[in-house]
Amino acid sequence: MEGTDGLDRRGFNRRMLLGGAATVAGVTSLSLASAPESATAAGAVRTAPAGGKVKYIKMYAEKLPDGQLGYGLEKGKASIPGPLIELNEGDTLHIEFENTLDVPASLHVHGMDYEITSDGTKLNNSDVEPGGTRAYTWRTHAPGRRKDGTWRAGSAGYWHYHDHVVGTEHGTGGIRKGLYGPVIVRRQGDILPDKTFTIVFNDMMINNLTAHQGHEGHKGPDFEATVGDRVEIVMITHGEYYHTFHLHGHRWADNRTGMLTGPDDPSQVIDNKIVGPADSFGFQVIAGEGVGAGAWMYHCHVQSHSDMGMVGLLLVRKTDGTIPGYAGRSH
Amino acid sequence: MEGTDGLDRRGFNRRMLLGGAATVAGVTSLSLASAPESATAAGAVRTAPAGGKVKYIKMYAEKLPDGQLGYGLEKGKASIPGPLIELNEGDTLHIEFENTLDVPASLHVHGMDYEITSDGTKLNNSDVEPGGTRAYTWRTHAPGRRKDGTWRAGSAGYWHYHDHVVGTEHGTGGIRKGLYGPVIVRRQGDILPDKTFTIVFNDMMINNLTAHQGHEGHKGPDFEATVGDRVEIVMITHGEYYHTFHLHGHRWADNRTGMLTGPDDPSQVIDNKIVGPADSFGFQVIAGEGVGAGAWMYHCHVQSHSDMGMVGLLLVRKTDGTIPGYAGRSH
Amino acid sequence: MEGTDGLDRRGFNRRMLLGGAATVAGVTSLSLASAPESATAAGAVRTAPAGGKVKYIKMYAEKLPDGQLGYGLEKGKASIPGPLIELNEGDTLHIEFENTLDVPASLHVHGMDYEITSDGTKLNNSDVEPGGTRAYTWRTHAPGRRKDGTWRAGSAGYWHYHDHVVGTEHGTGGIRKGLYGPVIVRRQGDILPDKTFTIVFNDMMINNLTAHQGHEGHKGPDFEATVGDRVEIVMITHGEYYHTFHLHGHRWADNRTGMLTGPDDPSQVIDNKIVGPADSFGFQVIAGEGVGAGAWMYHCHVQSHSDMGMVGLLLVRKTDGTIPGYAGRSH
Repeated sequence: MEGTDGLDRRGFNRRMLLGGAATVAGVTSLSLASAPESATAAGAVRTAPAGGKVKYIKMYAEKLPDGQLGYGLEKGKASIPGPLIELNEGDTLHIEFENTLDVPASLHVHGMDYEITSDGTKLNNSDVEPGGTRAYTWRTHAPGRRKDGTWRAGSAGYWHYHDHVVGTEHGTGGIRKGLYGPVIVRRQGDILPDKTFTIVFNDMMINNLTAHQGHEGHKGPDFEATVGDRVEIVMITHGEYYHTFHLHGHRWADNRTGMLTGPDDPSQVIDNKIVGPADSFGFQVIAGEGVGAGAWMYHCHVQSHSDMGMVGLLLVRKTDGTIPGYAGRSH
Repeated sequence: MEGTDGLDRRGFNRRMLLGGAATVAGVTSLSLASAPESATAAGAVRTAPAGGKVKYIKMYAEKLPDGQLGYGLEKGKASIPGPLIELNEGDTLHIEFENTLDVPASLHVHGMDYEITSDGTKLNNSDVEPGGTRAYTWRTHAPGRRKDGTWRAGSAGYWHYHDHVVGTEHGTGGIRKGLYGPVIVRRQGDILPDKTFTIVFNDMMINNLTAHQGHEGHKGPDFEATVGDRVEIVMITHGEYYHTFHLHGHRWADNRTGMLTGPDDPSQVIDNKIVGPADSFGFQVIAGEGVGAGAWMYHCHVQSHSDMGMVGLLLVRKTDGTIPGYAGRSH
Repeated sequence: MEGTDGLDRRGFNRRMLLGGAATVAGVTSLSLASAPESATAAGAVRTAPAGGKVKYIKMYAEKLPDGQLGYGLEKGKASIPGPLIELNEGDTLHIEFENTLDVPASLHVHGMDYEITSDGTKLNNSDVEPGGTRAYTWRTHAPGRRKDGTWRAGSAGYWHYHDHVVGTEHGTGGIRKGLYGPVIVRRQGDILPDKTFTIVFNDMMINNLTAHQGHEGHKGPDFEATVGDRVEIVMITHGEYYHTFHLHGHRWADNRTGMLTGPDDPSQVIDNKIVGPADSFGFQVIAGEGVGAGAWMYHCHVQSHSDMGMVGLLLVRKTDGTIPGYAGRSH
């Protein structure tokens, strides 16, 4: 089963070239990045280009058929998590946000530069009445030296957006029901992945899935890759509880990109990380590197949480499509 | 409303020059740092000088009028959080601590070098009887190479002190009622802020405030700055619960200073961080940088905690004194 | 009292030279590292050699006399935590695991490279029936550049192993009763400690000790060192709750080794860290450096947890064997 928010970049880039539009039907992830800098020759690494573009999208808050809430780029296409928004440092994103719900809703983002009018809060009168529309503007910037000689960090990071008004002044009801999504801001030269998957621990749910997926006791989505794929994970937490995110057989660096910059990077390499509501981080792994194909679990390592089903699979296939020890399982 | 522990360094430096004394009446923050190295010419960055000084202060544990407990530099001047103590690496601080409470109390510090007699614990007989006085000595050191060639970290960091004996052997009662405060140790060359604010998440309180401040549902203190101010936040957690500290519209680096050292620093830039009791960190932001003036919320992002009022404001004014979208609000 | 998992490396190295075998009777820690690179002349630092060796050990899951469960290298020698396994990057470890329990058990490891057949999970049919034996293979690798030019992190780190099947699909029952242990993978050139102690916060227990040790109200083990010893702590968390690990009078860097790489390492230096289940980290301190001998507490800083006894001591002796302020205490 392909994860609901899985995106095969190679396919997507092709679609972008063919479609030429930001809002392709059925695409729940949105790359606003420009074409990668490097050639996509086999074996070569593609990297993020410089930013500086001004982009425009529409976003909708919608009620989903099952009563949950989602964000989408087109009417009737909302998803949980909401669409992945990718930017390059220096880009500006103008969002025309339409609230199709019967209660006020908003779009509050982490990590971006935005004026107080784009805060998405009741405090700052930047939420949207039922049926209303509002423009939110998110800006990003490259790192650089200030006039006083100090270093200003860039916007690059694994960030996220969410509602800040449904249910309570802090969007507790909206977040609970699914009004959240990932944002990635890339720095020029950042390595681009083949696939990006978003995993949101929201209370005891993963990506707000409640029915059991695939395996008995697993409530989380499964994600698919082939050995050698450069897989990017965006991990976001929401709600009330702390969790520990664990991935079997793969590790990442506890730094900005989740990958060491080189031999001098002192960051700890981990495969388990404590997280709390509104924390976000990301990383890339080479699927199966050093370990091969398999049904690799990811799960919350708080024991009662994993026992209650906060578990999913990273299904890493051999190039012939098989998964050792996994073939024949019903799912 | 000026935060209770806000300190305008420009004003304070003036006061220090005028007063020449470490314990100025009414000042709840104490800079034991020497004069900054750089000139304070407009636009220039002031940096911390080398340490190596020996300093002496008095500290009191007191009952406050509302029944809570606080530390202060003068009798009758205790505050929650206790006074901010700033040192430079290499400084030694001798504290004559007087316990004016009717139960034993102590001063236990994180991050400093102290002999076991300054541990501030019952285990080491270093607490203070009611009415008693005890000398605590905190030392700090610059980083450097040991004789064996290994690198020894310096003392620089965002640390804190607290009681370790009121209520229980671990000071649970003293901490709960307000016996805690911030310590900053700076390295030579560290950038000095214009203002320093201390935010302590102590159970469901911020800085032990219980009455609602400013806005409905906000129990945390508000802090004031003007666009362009270099604002330093010291964030400390105490008590029983984990929290996530979130600041709207501003970000920091997850490293020693909260600021990237330059383009090669791999640290993650964040605006949300999970914290637990006795964790402490700090950072500097340029108020309104890239986002402008506004009433920028900070809050615990655990949804029930923010809903219960673990929220305050960083009020960033334009140079004309106004705050867009905020004027006219009662507070 | 010597901690149950304390290991004096100088003595151990001697034993290794004398015994020449990996499974020395009574040794609950296992160094699979090769001889250190540097001479052990007084004052010189010993460092880890290059890896690349293939090693073989036996591991047993056993019921302990008190009903708890442990891992051991020999029958009847199981301990909690299980034996410390040390490897150098590039080493391969083949483990013949025998399950002497009356329920299925397994060995799941963090941080290592292992094929899906060594996952130690029911999902991947890699657990072991009662009385059964299974070979698990853990591989490690040095960092290096991939063919595509990107940097691949090495395996070095403070990791751990645990059961993944006793009680629940996630080993909740096995972990609860003691089926866990530490793994250290060292990089060539990493500084070697004089002693390594393992501290596991498992629910409200430390190293599954339940009876009070040494001091009233302290349930954790005490560890012993002499001023100047290079003491290594491996800190692992398991179970259901979050904790904050705090050590009095000593600090570490929040990075891979727990020690700064030098003056340019931006990592935060801390003495308190929030952790959750399956998190692990480690560090080295020079016992008593800058602070002298003493009974230095380590404890969970969640107030109710320390009050319930999640406390132990790092007993740092003077070279004459005494501990200031501690002599004469019953323990």
